[in-house]
Amino acid sequence: MSKYKKEDSFSYTLGTTLTIELLKNKPNLVTKVFFNSNLNEGLGSKEVTELCLKNNIEIIKSDKIFRNLNAKDNCYVIGEFNKYFNELDQKSNHLVLVSPSNDGNLGTIIRSALGFDILNIAIIKPAADIFDPKVIRSSMGAIFSVNVEYFDTFLDYQTKFDNHNFYPFMLQSKSKLKDTIFTENYSLIFGKEDSGLDDTFLKIGHNVIIPHNNSIDSLNLPIAVSIALYEVTKNKY
Amino acid sequence: MSKYKKEDSFSYTLGTTLTIELLKNKPNLVTKVFFNSNLNEGLGSKEVTELCLKNNIEIIKSDKIFRNLNAKDNCYVIGEFNKYFNELDQKSNHLVLVSPSNDGNLGTIIRSALGFDILNIAIIKPAADIFDPKVIRSSMGAIFSVNVEYFDTFLDYQTKFDNHNFYPFMLQSKSKLKDTIFTENYSLIFGKEDSGLDDTFLKIGHNVIIPHNNSIDSLNLPIAVSIALYEVTKNKY
Repeated sequence: MSKYKKEDSFSYTLGTTLTIELLKNKPNLVTKVFFNSNLNEGLGSKEVTELCLKNNIEIIKSDKIFRNLNAKDNCYVIGEFNKYFNELDQKSNHLVLVSPSNDGNLGTIIRSALGFDILNIAIIKPAADIFDPKVIRSSMGAIFSVNVEYFDTFLDYQTKFDNHNFYPFMLQSKSKLKDTIFTENYSLIFGKEDSGLDDTFLKIGHNVIIPHNNSIDSLNLPIAVSIALYEVTKNKY
Repeated sequence: MSKYKKEDSFSYTLGTTLTIELLKNKPNLVTKVFFNSNLNEGLGSKEVTELCLKNNIEIIKSDKIFRNLNAKDNCYVIGEFNKYFNELDQKSNHLVLVSPSNDGNLGTIIRSALGFDILNIAIIKPAADIFDPKVIRSSMGAIFSVNVEYFDTFLDYQTKFDNHNFYPFMLQSKSKLKDTIFTENYSLIFGKEDSGLDDTFLKIGHNVIIPHNNSIDSLNLPIAVSIALYEVTKNKY
């Protein structure tokens, strides 16, 4: 066993809470659960043990994998699972991320999307890897409750979901978020952390801006995405 | 010279863009600017040089401080400055953070606050240090354009600004953000990353919730703060 690699067919949840989320949402994909020798008997470990028993998953007591995966000192439980593929639901609203590169940001965005009921997320390559343990951690396990599908190009996505209404979020837009009407099924589209969407997206669907003053260049990506998710879904809650 | 410490009377901006923000907004507080031997002549270094000349600030060519401060490989410019104290403006709207502990989160929040024109931020101790180079970096220099004042307790803040209208954001609230009317001068109050505000805040002012589904425990703190800042200020833009 060695450090996580993008090419691997399996990945890991580092920590008790994340492993519980994995066991609850994707039990059939879990191959093993590891307990560290410093694990105390507690509610969390009891829940993990019960979920493993119920799903016939082997628990291995070993410290080696904690070192190999550079687990933090307060990480006592690791789940190992087979990676999987999702297809997006044609009849649902989507979030589309064009080339997100930061692991922590991607996880945070997935957590917000789950909280606001956007359960289908398209990611256009090149992009961060949703199964990287850092993404899983920053999603706080939300990754196991949403559909994520990767596409080689935006055109591939656009062709597959040509029944959707496209809303590219970009600083070049003149249409303010608060004044925009979003028609289902919609696709909220966001660009890269540093450069956003390029001008070709001005010709796609109905572009939108989240206005702010000129003191900052742009909002942080997970924040822009989450403000949009909040505004678009807020009448549901 | 050694690594940054909270007790020091000075701190550092690691990087060209951050150092430019420092030189533009707080030139009188800058004591030195360091250039790494790998710095290329470019627009950024030209702007730093001009700002230093204009403000009579010494430029030192040295690689040692880059190693001492664990600067990243792509960091070629460091600014050294004296820390300073701000007092919040009595006649402005405030953001109040009760014991934020994560450096990256604090910087991100400050950047959003600047973008939505909330220029006065109270921080209740214990809390992360706004002058930590990690906070400065994640604020993208926004820290140099806002007033931040620390308070030992929330009561100290409350007593000093008893003319303000307090809006504690908490999951225990029944008043939705989208239905809440915010009366100036307001104070938007947020709790810790992990536990939020405790029940004592239910008796203070008018509490507010940002509703989301039950699939997640809570929104990430910078995201909750930024959604609130967006909603409360959106009619200005």
